[in-house]
Amino acid sequence: MGKLTVTRTERIHWGDCDPAGIIYYPRYFEIFDRCTTTMLEQALGMTKHQYLIAYDFTGHPVVDTRARFILPTRYGDDVVIESTIVALRRSSFEIQHHLSKNGNLSVEGSETRVWVRRQSANATSIKAHPIPDEVVARLGGR
Amino acid sequence: MGKLTVTRTERIHWGDCDPAGIIYYPRYFEIFDRCTTTMLEQALGMTKHQYLIAYDFTGHPVVDTRARFILPTRYGDDVVIESTIVALRRSSFEIQHHLSKNGNLSVEGSETRVWVRRQSANATSIKAHPIPDEVVARLGGR
Amino acid sequence: MGKLTVTRTERIHWGDCDPAGIIYYPRYFEIFDRCTTTMLEQALGMTKHQYLIAYDFTGHPVVDTRARFILPTRYGDDVVIESTIVALRRSSFEIQHHLSKNGNLSVEGSETRVWVRRQSANATSIKAHPIPDEVVARLGGR
Amino acid sequence: MGKLTVTRTERIHWGDCDPAGIIYYPRYFEIFDRCTTTMLEQALGMTKHQYLIAYDFTGHPVVDTRARFILPTRYGDDVVIESTIVALRRSSFEIQHHLSKNGNLSVEGSETRVWVRRQSANATSIKAHPIPDEVVARLGGR
Repeated sequence: MGKLTVTRTERIHWGDCDPAGIIYYPRYFEIFDRCTTTMLEQALGMTKHQYLIAYDFTGHPVVDTRARFILPTRYGDDVVIESTIVALRRSSFEIQHHLSKNGNLSVEGSETRVWVRRQSANATSIKAHPIPDEVVARLGGR
Repeated sequence: MGKLTVTRTERIHWGDCDPAGIIYYPRYFEIFDRCTTTMLEQALGMTKHQYLIAYDFTGHPVVDTRARFILPTRYGDDVVIESTIVALRRSSFEIQHHLSKNGNLSVEGSETRVWVRRQSANATSIKAHPIPDEVVARLGGR
Repeated sequence: MGKLTVTRTERIHWGDCDPAGIIYYPRYFEIFDRCTTTMLEQALGMTKHQYLIAYDFTGHPVVDTRARFILPTRYGDDVVIESTIVALRRSSFEIQHHLSKNGNLSVEGSETRVWVRRQSANATSIKAHPIPDEVVARLGGR
Repeated sequence: MGKLTVTRTERIHWGDCDPAGIIYYPRYFEIFDRCTTTMLEQALGMTKHQYLIAYDFTGHPVVDTRARFILPTRYGDDVVIESTIVALRRSSFEIQHHLSKNGNLSVEGSETRVWVRRQSANATSIKAHPIPDEVVARLGGR
């Protein structure tokens, strides 16, 4: 099957930028997190609030991430992020993000996320759980 | 010369955490950024506001970063971050961060930063610049 | 003249919410700041980056703000914010924000902002400056 | 009884500041939120994670807040915040924050918070609940 790719556009805001006038780099990871959520929301046809309930899980926390910052962005810039699932395993998946400004690749990011469930009511005791077959299918299959 | 290591303690706050009750992972990069600033402030004996003026440069933006999230942290946790300079080149340097909670390694991060100067009054046109010899010496030398 | 009103829609994201599952309230002020920027961008027909240069000023910092939080919002909610200029003085202006979710007023905010210029190259020495006549006219006049 | 006052010191960081070089004002509300948590933690002798469990409630969300920004702060500044409980009612309380830099009052903030409990497992259905007598006593009484 083909790889699932989702495109999202974001505006860089004044409050995302630092005294050098460019984006404060941790904000890129917030952008990537919104992109991954958008991908799952589009694939599953519901909001994150709904899909956490529907598939009875706690979330898909990042366990490994990397980013290369190639060109700076600043407030007022509209950027386009293309997010692609590049690996889909039993209880984890990998996403690549390409962020462009005016058609020029500005940031490359990648992340590995794990499908987790709370083991009990204790919020910090979470454990990897197999990704449901239906989700795997909607994300493009293994 | 020995490698420069700086230790910083941070409390994880309620507002740093997400609905899963654990830290929202982009916040770790804010923590790492504060650690790198602390390292430079301690090595140079002045605040960032002062050292940007003293060495006439715009900043030390990250061009590449990676992090592995091993154990979750949540609000109320006090974490210890050990930051070490692992490479010091002509106009860039590399730092590794080890974040522990109760003595257990929870996050490993690394980053490459470039010493940059604005080319003109235009805030987004920045260019790599050699790290001053005095700074290199204070950071432990090449 | 009629009062200028601008409407903006925002999605509340996972990373905007706290362990109680609802939005972390400082995020509302980030939303309001984006709304005020949007209002000025629409009225002046350029981005904030462009209008700071075009009118040669440093910004429009908030000097007084108040907000009432009536109904909680959470991730996945789409909210509508109506922002209205309610006062336009020599060097300051006042904006009211009404944020609704599903047609129900959820937050009411107000803010007073001052038009400021840097007195010199020193970033923290800023001073109120008369709002240019052209800007006053585009914002609906006094 | 005397009013409870708690003092906290914070450093303003690079990532808290905007392209004007001064703090991005929503960050002040994050500071105030940490101050209120610190006050409760000191009064109750436990972390927020612990006191939410010990007193079986969901949180103390802000329902009304106001702030006046008198003097700007920027990265590298160390500020002192004095937080005082000025009203303690059946299920709500009011706090005033005075933030100073080098002894000069820079920001004044006030907030009203409600003691709430989740009505069920549904995270957004929360309801005001009487503040426990023990908490009232530790906060200085009515």
